[in-house]
Amino acid sequence: MQQLTHKITIKTNGRRLYDITPQVMSWAANSGLHTGLLTLYIQHTSASLLINENYDPDVLVDMDTFFERIVPDGDAMFIHTAEGRDDMPAHIRSALTQTSISIPFIDGKVALGTWQGIFLYEHRFAAHTRNVLLHLIAE
Amino acid sequence: MQQLTHKITIKTNGRRLYDITPQVMSWAANSGLHTGLLTLYIQHTSASLLINENYDPDVLVDMDTFFERIVPDGDAMFIHTAEGRDDMPAHIRSALTQTSISIPFIDGKVALGTWQGIFLYEHRFAAHTRNVLLHLIAE
Amino acid sequence: MQQLTHKITIKTNGRRLYDITPQVMSWAANSGLHTGLLTLYIQHTSASLLINENYDPDVLVDMDTFFERIVPDGDAMFIHTAEGRDDMPAHIRSALTQTSISIPFIDGKVALGTWQGIFLYEHRFAAHTRNVLLHLIAE
Repeated sequence: MQQLTHKITIKTNGRRLYDITPQVMSWAANSGLHTGLLTLYIQHTSASLLINENYDPDVLVDMDTFFERIVPDGDAMFIHTAEGRDDMPAHIRSALTQTSISIPFIDGKVALGTWQGIFLYEHRFAAHTRNVLLHLIAE
Repeated sequence: MQQLTHKITIKTNGRRLYDITPQVMSWAANSGLHTGLLTLYIQHTSASLLINENYDPDVLVDMDTFFERIVPDGDAMFIHTAEGRDDMPAHIRSALTQTSISIPFIDGKVALGTWQGIFLYEHRFAAHTRNVLLHLIAE
Repeated sequence: MQQLTHKITIKTNGRRLYDITPQVMSWAANSGLHTGLLTLYIQHTSASLLINENYDPDVLVDMDTFFERIVPDGDAMFIHTAEGRDDMPAHIRSALTQTSISIPFIDGKVALGTWQGIFLYEHRFAAHTRNVLLHLIAE
């Protein structure tokens, strides 16, 4: 059994879903290992991880439309407002989605379903640099 | 340290929570292993995983009532509508629940709490065939 | 490769987020191990886990204000009411947040981001005793 760790750094330029599937898949495939478990972990609380449909880009638009409706930016109920009208909503959106995701690694391949992609979900309006840690334990 | 992987296939027949606890527990118990970590991963974006109360079936009804209220089927805000009025809501419900869950495996048993069950949550109206991957690393 | 498991017991005294970062960090640091994966698992369906900002306490207040708005206690839509007006909302809040979280363990340290804390989120009004299982696989 072996372990590998890696850090992916993504420069975001505004609120939306960023497809990181190719970087994750190719790093795991290049490990030379065969069977195990891949874990992704994002080191932030205003950006998150999401497995989502990777086919119709309208799905990504609708996902964000939904979150804008249930977590309105600048809502009067929020008292944590010093970092901007999108900051507290970003923490809530992160709580409602994922900070870590684990995916089996089978036959040298991350075992995503046919229509699944791995996305970093930036919830802030401004540009940010985001770190996603990858951990692979496999043989 | 050893690893085992397994695929559970569930034929769903409409939107609801399906209890998969017995299949998961018995597969892990039959591994002959003692201590480790079990990971479940669902290969879909319109069905998801959920640890939920396994005692009162009313809890399962209320869970779905809640999701129908906050993610209304056929809502006019959605532009991804070609696959049906329940499709985009299914992607959002999946985002709000889980794609992967990891549970410690202790003394030859998946360490669920007393009232916990493992559920596949089908979010589409029509029947589907759903795959859940199991990964056990243990000794 | 080695494994360690541990149970943290938290006595809660009402609905709020409880910071368990110090207990988790010190247990993992004292393992004497170097690199691996830490998994947290909560054995309940009316309390959950959340990675959240650990700096401004207002974030914790706003998080709960949000959940009280989208999952109203005692809402007339709920039929599972025998265990109290906060019980079904507690199950839904647990579904919307996390039951398990996995975090890479690098250089003898749980690899949290700068502003991340690990929280137990008690969703019930009354005092409860809550168990969080920790599993570390590392070398």
